[in-house]
Amino acid sequence: MYTVDINCDLGESFGRYKLGEQEEVLRYITSANIACGFHAGDPSVMRETVELAVKNNVQIGAHPGLPDLNGFGRREMKISPQEAYDIVVYQIGALQGFLTTKKVKMQHVKPHGALYNMAAVNEKIAQAIAQAVYDVSPELILYGLASSELTRAGEKVGLKTVHEVFADRTYQQDGTLTKRNESNALITDGKRAVAQIIEMIKEGTVTSVQNTKFPLQAHSICVHGDGEHAVQFAQLTRTKLEQQGIVVKAFQ
Amino acid sequence: MYTVDINCDLGESFGRYKLGEQEEVLRYITSANIACGFHAGDPSVMRETVELAVKNNVQIGAHPGLPDLNGFGRREMKISPQEAYDIVVYQIGALQGFLTTKKVKMQHVKPHGALYNMAAVNEKIAQAIAQAVYDVSPELILYGLASSELTRAGEKVGLKTVHEVFADRTYQQDGTLTKRNESNALITDGKRAVAQIIEMIKEGTVTSVQNTKFPLQAHSICVHGDGEHAVQFAQLTRTKLEQQGIVVKAFQ
Amino acid sequence: MYTVDINCDLGESFGRYKLGEQEEVLRYITSANIACGFHAGDPSVMRETVELAVKNNVQIGAHPGLPDLNGFGRREMKISPQEAYDIVVYQIGALQGFLTTKKVKMQHVKPHGALYNMAAVNEKIAQAIAQAVYDVSPELILYGLASSELTRAGEKVGLKTVHEVFADRTYQQDGTLTKRNESNALITDGKRAVAQIIEMIKEGTVTSVQNTKFPLQAHSICVHGDGEHAVQFAQLTRTKLEQQGIVVKAFQ
Amino acid sequence: MYTVDINCDLGESFGRYKLGEQEEVLRYITSANIACGFHAGDPSVMRETVELAVKNNVQIGAHPGLPDLNGFGRREMKISPQEAYDIVVYQIGALQGFLTTKKVKMQHVKPHGALYNMAAVNEKIAQAIAQAVYDVSPELILYGLASSELTRAGEKVGLKTVHEVFADRTYQQDGTLTKRNESNALITDGKRAVAQIIEMIKEGTVTSVQNTKFPLQAHSICVHGDGEHAVQFAQLTRTKLEQQGIVVKAFQ
Repeated sequence: MYTVDINCDLGESFGRYKLGEQEEVLRYITSANIACGFHAGDPSVMRETVELAVKNNVQIGAHPGLPDLNGFGRREMKISPQEAYDIVVYQIGALQGFLTTKKVKMQHVKPHGALYNMAAVNEKIAQAIAQAVYDVSPELILYGLASSELTRAGEKVGLKTVHEVFADRTYQQDGTLTKRNESNALITDGKRAVAQIIEMIKEGTVTSVQNTKFPLQAHSICVHGDGEHAVQFAQLTRTKLEQQGIVVKAFQ
Repeated sequence: MYTVDINCDLGESFGRYKLGEQEEVLRYITSANIACGFHAGDPSVMRETVELAVKNNVQIGAHPGLPDLNGFGRREMKISPQEAYDIVVYQIGALQGFLTTKKVKMQHVKPHGALYNMAAVNEKIAQAIAQAVYDVSPELILYGLASSELTRAGEKVGLKTVHEVFADRTYQQDGTLTKRNESNALITDGKRAVAQIIEMIKEGTVTSVQNTKFPLQAHSICVHGDGEHAVQFAQLTRTKLEQQGIVVKAFQ
Repeated sequence: MYTVDINCDLGESFGRYKLGEQEEVLRYITSANIACGFHAGDPSVMRETVELAVKNNVQIGAHPGLPDLNGFGRREMKISPQEAYDIVVYQIGALQGFLTTKKVKMQHVKPHGALYNMAAVNEKIAQAIAQAVYDVSPELILYGLASSELTRAGEKVGLKTVHEVFADRTYQQDGTLTKRNESNALITDGKRAVAQIIEMIKEGTVTSVQNTKFPLQAHSICVHGDGEHAVQFAQLTRTKLEQQGIVVKAFQ
Repeated sequence: MYTVDINCDLGESFGRYKLGEQEEVLRYITSANIACGFHAGDPSVMRETVELAVKNNVQIGAHPGLPDLNGFGRREMKISPQEAYDIVVYQIGALQGFLTTKKVKMQHVKPHGALYNMAAVNEKIAQAIAQAVYDVSPELILYGLASSELTRAGEKVGLKTVHEVFADRTYQQDGTLTKRNESNALITDGKRAVAQIIEMIKEGTVTSVQNTKFPLQAHSICVHGDGEHAVQFAQLTRTKLEQQGIVVKAFQ
């Protein structure tokens, strides 16, 4: 029996600014990564999103980002490993505050945007983040790009580590994602996206744009919570996986 | 036997900006209120301050403030009770993150600046803050201005509540602090300041500027961590209290 | 011949967060109040909005707000008159930077949200804002709530001052707006809204909710740039005014 | 006759946080680079610093930085050239607001910290900044690291460009500064520092740590406004230069 988790970044509204159809998308996912106020989100948005996730029986994780609201945490910043450690502890703690008030356990931590990408390739940043997660709680699960420095660092420090894959992104022959600014970076055809995931889950490989196969674990699939067809795509993904007999569930 | 706690606001540096002589002042206090990044402090400053407090065997509390770094949390903002609740949960959680990594228990919560003053007189804001503290943990102690809406709200919700007094501020006949912009608001004479505290602790009263006595509990004395004579004043306060046979200790 | 200006708050997006249908609404207005990065807007949004306004031949004004992005500048903050002066100079200057690069002249300044409301009733804040505008340029036009402290302060300091009215808000017998939290604060019927403006422009009065008439100048009408029917409403307002022979135009 | 300018970064306080002995250092410098609120400074600090500079008859320039107050603008951020353009226009404009109220002309623009360093080596960022300065006013002078991409971009776009040198930093044989994390990066001996500047001004060369000579223009010397011996060092620099018959003056 195959199982997989579907995760989505949520809680990315801020004050008057609304982002994402989170009430809709929560129906189709099993784990929610909630922004913690650095790249997106604010205390009230965090509380509301926690409430929604609990109501929908979706597992909750912290989604810490770089302190760059204007850049939505997508602009790489040269922070030190110690700074990475500190901002991750801070943001996990802040979200944990809301979980504690609801008597809900945090399942996981997944870095956001540029912090996620830096952690995928920079060993020291990866180790700092993994250590921060471990120091807050060794029971937390660390999500990272499949086969990246971050998953390696998580495994090394002794955390349960989830290899994350993307349905709508293409891969290079070395297992990295095709850069967003390249023309073939995105898979817009829903069927092809689903086929890619099913290969990952059932075969343990991904077919690269160079048409080679790269071995890849697929513990969790990332879907998007905003954008024109986000909800439809989440629904399609879940439906197709279940039709293939794949059990969609979180880790707790 | 009389006992009293001495608390001080710490962790108020931010990035390159340094504030306060916290290594010095930690020798003379028993409880540290650590800023949580809204009015002052940042994740690295919070971690360092937690480390220093632990090293000095000083109890730690969260010191949540308004989201106004430029105004140092001293400018009143018309936030709703729900917003007050949310920013307090967020900030307690963020600091708790660092305490968790050090396996240290948080002792208390004391709001900062304008949030402290708003909570002293605004029943709804006071209740929202008390509820936030209680919801994060009923074992947390709430610090508030002695005989204020905040201490009343804390007692009502079932929290252990600490009545805080000031050595270097004068009081009005109704037990409120003389406003800072009035000429006689501050007590600059160290002896007079100490005499005021000793009256509070031993007699349970304060002599107002109108020369009347107002009944006041004095569970904890606030001293300052910055300013020209802050360290000397903290040292003097502690020495004089101990000479009077008053035991200076925290609540845990 | 009657003339009136139609103004709208624009440039309120921020980073990834989009707000308002500004390309649409720019077709129907004559003056744009552009957010300056404190309550909304960022440097890139400001540049883009200036470009759009210029393209649509719409006059441009600065729309300075309180430093409260999370509260969208709608939460009153106890700032000093000097702080009000300084944040207004800063924000006008920042927007002027973009206008200078486009060789376009700034027409006006209109405070935003809580700063607008504070300036309407607080004489010292009103004077500080008027002085800031005057000191940057005596040729700037100051927009304020009709018959408020802000318009009085503008007139006193020697600025050309525009009395602003609202089509979709009801008025009290003393000329103030009905508070938003009261049930009859908003006029949702487009026809009634237009009728109210036409009375203001042609008769120089507004009929209050108490059914009395209050004398009011109506130099400029504020329409909204976001919300479900914002564009339609702006279009309707302009069309109906022009059908009544009222010339819709800015002040430069 | 040799002439040189002495510049210093000022206005780097923020709210309650004070940085630098600017009243003292203003006596010895000829040009002040004033922070504009992104990496340091706030509207009130900017106004006060402009007033001080004017009082001391020191020329004023904008000192735009990355939007990273917590990192003091010293952490490189991957911003686009368009973003660099926009944040520079914004910050120049904001400072210009205060200069306009004082009827004082802005002399120059010098990027801060990581933005300065990025502009020294990244041609596209350098061009974007030079264009932003030019578009605000072709009369502004652009300060950059001597013989860097930024000075080249300034010259190319048609700006008067100032080559800046450092008294207390060592140079590599290719004319770049020795990185701060290397042990011999700083010159702490005041006499050696002054000797280095005098060689730059009189010989047009700098002796590198590899003991080779690199040709370098020295239009302006950067001194620091904070740190233990900042004021003494500024005074020493000025005195020694004048003793050598070098005229210390700004460009306007």
